[in-house]
Amino acid sequence: MSRMLEEIRQQPAALARTLKAGIGNAKRFQRLLEGNRPRLVVLAARGTSDNAALFGRYLLEIAAGIPVSLAAPSIATLYRAKVDYSQALVVALSQSGESTDTNTLLEWARARGAMTLGITNERASTLARLAEHVWLVRAGKERSVAATKTYTGQMMLLYLLAYALGGRIRLSDLERLPGIVEDALGLEEEVAELAARYRFMNRAAVVGRGLNYANAFEFALKLMETCYVVAERFSSADFLHGPIALAEANFPVFAFAPSGVTWPSIGQTLDKLTRMRAEVLAITDAGNREAETCAARVIRLPRPIPEGLTPIPYIVPAQIFAACLAVEKGLDPDRPRTLSKVTRTL
Amino acid sequence: MSRMLEEIRQQPAALARTLKAGIGNAKRFQRLLEGNRPRLVVLAARGTSDNAALFGRYLLEIAAGIPVSLAAPSIATLYRAKVDYSQALVVALSQSGESTDTNTLLEWARARGAMTLGITNERASTLARLAEHVWLVRAGKERSVAATKTYTGQMMLLYLLAYALGGRIRLSDLERLPGIVEDALGLEEEVAELAARYRFMNRAAVVGRGLNYANAFEFALKLMETCYVVAERFSSADFLHGPIALAEANFPVFAFAPSGVTWPSIGQTLDKLTRMRAEVLAITDAGNREAETCAARVIRLPRPIPEGLTPIPYIVPAQIFAACLAVEKGLDPDRPRTLSKVTRTL
Repeated sequence: MSRMLEEIRQQPAALARTLKAGIGNAKRFQRLLEGNRPRLVVLAARGTSDNAALFGRYLLEIAAGIPVSLAAPSIATLYRAKVDYSQALVVALSQSGESTDTNTLLEWARARGAMTLGITNERASTLARLAEHVWLVRAGKERSVAATKTYTGQMMLLYLLAYALGGRIRLSDLERLPGIVEDALGLEEEVAELAARYRFMNRAAVVGRGLNYANAFEFALKLMETCYVVAERFSSADFLHGPIALAEANFPVFAFAPSGVTWPSIGQTLDKLTRMRAEVLAITDAGNREAETCAARVIRLPRPIPEGLTPIPYIVPAQIFAACLAVEKGLDPDRPRTLSKVTRTL
Repeated sequence: MSRMLEEIRQQPAALARTLKAGIGNAKRFQRLLEGNRPRLVVLAARGTSDNAALFGRYLLEIAAGIPVSLAAPSIATLYRAKVDYSQALVVALSQSGESTDTNTLLEWARARGAMTLGITNERASTLARLAEHVWLVRAGKERSVAATKTYTGQMMLLYLLAYALGGRIRLSDLERLPGIVEDALGLEEEVAELAARYRFMNRAAVVGRGLNYANAFEFALKLMETCYVVAERFSSADFLHGPIALAEANFPVFAFAPSGVTWPSIGQTLDKLTRMRAEVLAITDAGNREAETCAARVIRLPRPIPEGLTPIPYIVPAQIFAACLAVEKGLDPDRPRTLSKVTRTL
């Protein structure tokens, strides 16, 4: 069995640990911010951590009403611009805590007036040393190059950040997440069988919207780095603004399809794709009965899940799919060609 | 000849008109903002206009030092979140001015305290009616579904916005741009010949960094919508954080490679790709002599261009490439399947 699959299976325990240890930090941070609420949150990351940041970009605006910007590290590392970060909270996310440009950005933002928070899986990392506040993902050492348990761990801490910023987040909801992820792991056999059908896929599109937009990026990244599939990622709205021209008969499209406010947009896109005879696989749950009417195939989590809680459990079947498809293609998901676990870029 | 190619050729005149009429607006806006500088700029758009916004995201932080966020329209249109936009400037960009979700976001932001600016090619549009301030792209009616001259026109107005926000922008530099674009148009025959080699390409990656990151998105979008090539777009740094695993012998990669602060990062990525025997085509200028040592092929603008002025002229050979490749593939670049000129999404 691949390390990637092993680490996928560790997620319920990793999430429970991360949440338990994180609540205290979140409550302290909440008190610290009383009367000193940031006017802007800037999230900085690369790779899978950047996909977690994209989730945070939606969550923090939706739940806490604070404008969020995803940092462009080159602004700091290459252009050395003088951006005014007074009253901003800058959050760097990195599994290893050794992503050089993310760390440079955090240091630079701190010097430019920002309050800084580091989110990492490595207590002894450079990021943990540089940031004013540090929150640890408690996923245990991640050995597979393809990150899985640290992605969902970072998402869990972003829920806690939304909570600390006064967002409408119930801790009792977050406590349900490890169990819902356990349900998703129960689909492993079904997903593995389904993945075998995609043995010869070499291009695809992944579609999501709102809180699941980040999952479209993350599933596409997993397909690229472990299966060498050229996988595009889109919001269902952006897809209609041009790239849908790509879709032809049998073109594989993967979609995150929760019930709730994003469903009309996702459903409209899937309907259009199905009429074009693209082959749609939707990841959904028992709460969305309409998904199977506009998708050729569905992966359905067994219980209804409120849309706001879907992002963590929905990525799990996608992770399993990528891990199984890589093996099906004769590749080693733990050691993608040319990659190493820690990537240092300018 | 396709309308797309015709409109590509109109860009020097369109840019000169847009700049000339825009300077007055920019100077008035600059005076208006004295003592009332926004703390945050939010850019909202879809499709090609969203790629222009991505250029603006870099330019405004680099030149004017104001934090920028790219809006996620669903936050307004689907989630109806209560985001605090006091002291924010929200800028909506749309060729037609009829992009429903962008317009909804602008209205919602105005109600939530933002100052609003609309940038559009259509004076009589809904966007021009909804925004407090309106700046017109003066590209003339755009008939091809694939947007070209409105993209560069929007970029020109974003330079003027950086100027109005107190950014380090010289108007005399902007006045040089129509002539540099004329130089780029002089490469048409060479680019058309090169495009013929890519007749059977069905997947590719496009790489850019910093101010040219948006061009990577825009070139990829043109390849997707007019040539049906599954084209990934990456910053050269993000590419190294996973997706570079895609690259194999003969995998086509396109790169924007100006001289200046981004070159070490782009050059490092191109070196790695060339060692992996991917086939790299670099768009560069006479000021970067190193580009041809790490790319199999180059499209070289004939005069040295400072990096800050490359984004508009660099997209021009890419537009020509897409228009010619579509014809080479037997497709009509003016009427991509399933698309219409105005896209309305939730």
